[in-house]
Amino acid sequence: MNTAAQAPSERSRVRRTEDRGHYDRATIHAIVDAAYLCHVAFVDERGPLCLPTAVWRVGDHVLIHGSNGSKMMKSLAQGTPACLAITHLDGLVMARSAFSHSMNFRSVVVHGAFEPVPDGEKTEVMHRLMDHLAPGRRDEARAPDRNELAATTVLRMPLFEAAAKIRAWGPKDKEEDMNWPVWAGVLPLHQGRLAPVAEPGCPANTPAYVRQWASA
Amino acid sequence: MNTAAQAPSERSRVRRTEDRGHYDRATIHAIVDAAYLCHVAFVDERGPLCLPTAVWRVGDHVLIHGSNGSKMMKSLAQGTPACLAITHLDGLVMARSAFSHSMNFRSVVVHGAFEPVPDGEKTEVMHRLMDHLAPGRRDEARAPDRNELAATTVLRMPLFEAAAKIRAWGPKDKEEDMNWPVWAGVLPLHQGRLAPVAEPGCPANTPAYVRQWASA
Repeated sequence: MNTAAQAPSERSRVRRTEDRGHYDRATIHAIVDAAYLCHVAFVDERGPLCLPTAVWRVGDHVLIHGSNGSKMMKSLAQGTPACLAITHLDGLVMARSAFSHSMNFRSVVVHGAFEPVPDGEKTEVMHRLMDHLAPGRRDEARAPDRNELAATTVLRMPLFEAAAKIRAWGPKDKEEDMNWPVWAGVLPLHQGRLAPVAEPGCPANTPAYVRQWASA
Repeated sequence: MNTAAQAPSERSRVRRTEDRGHYDRATIHAIVDAAYLCHVAFVDERGPLCLPTAVWRVGDHVLIHGSNGSKMMKSLAQGTPACLAITHLDGLVMARSAFSHSMNFRSVVVHGAFEPVPDGEKTEVMHRLMDHLAPGRRDEARAPDRNELAATTVLRMPLFEAAAKIRAWGPKDKEEDMNWPVWAGVLPLHQGRLAPVAEPGCPANTPAYVRQWASA
């Protein structure tokens, strides 16, 4: 199957190893939804920038947010061209030959531009961020007041010009290397969770998303 | 201590929450050395790009590599302005107020340009990549032949214009929120390792870096 024909635009087409490219919404959404963090590339008078920031999805948009005072938010809010990337590293691939070593990963790269989320939708999309981080907590934490909400820029980029890239298999060595006497396989990595660390004086009532954190 | 005064350049200065900025070599090296993956921002005729790729460090340089045929490698080898970012996500920070939620992380952002590693140094820096992934394996895997080495572009960027940013503490709520009746603390994340997956027909001799992988 030539998935490259499904790329939404020429610059979204996965060029190298194009059998790793995916353009369907379900695959792209799953990779975005597994992420807390993205990197955003854009250009200002400092040159090209690559900055990490929190990410979440609402429908067919990826969202980021920050203080109104952030230079990054100010630049991106103007609709400057941007590229957002999310990458999950799933393992180190040990091949028989040094040359064929690789990594297993799931990535999404989105081209486009951000636009501010309208004021009327801010509360709802910030709820959705909380749902992403800690389901149920939106009704427990002290809600943002008018000033806090006004001080926050929330930006969204459509997931239209997006491509996923996935490598999820063992080493692919050349035929003549298959009997090389070395261990070959995958050393898997994942985003692991460790035991929650409560603040001193925290209420005894521990919510489900905390109790289940390290076992999920 | 005003660490901002130590920033190597104005564009490397951490602007927001500048108490999180670090510019000393030891801090920057430790964050780079804990990473297998970086994101690189640069611009070509497609606009700004943000692409993930493997990363390692040799001395005061960060290195990336790829096929000579890769458009990314071709663009970056010409010394086009670039920005490289590495981010480790260490936890979700649950504050009493929704507004004060945050994330714990360690990041490094490097500004500059890449240059090709000279042919005479390629073998050594590729050994160093293998040392980073799997210490000891450089003597076990089938070594790259002349054609494989010639087909690989290896690029380096000096770690000069670099800044680290670290958040590694619990929630910082406003005084008036401290008694809000909600669980507060950190839900820690880390790069976890899972049990190695050997290829069928793999030699029985399992090297130390495989045996110790999931216990490290």
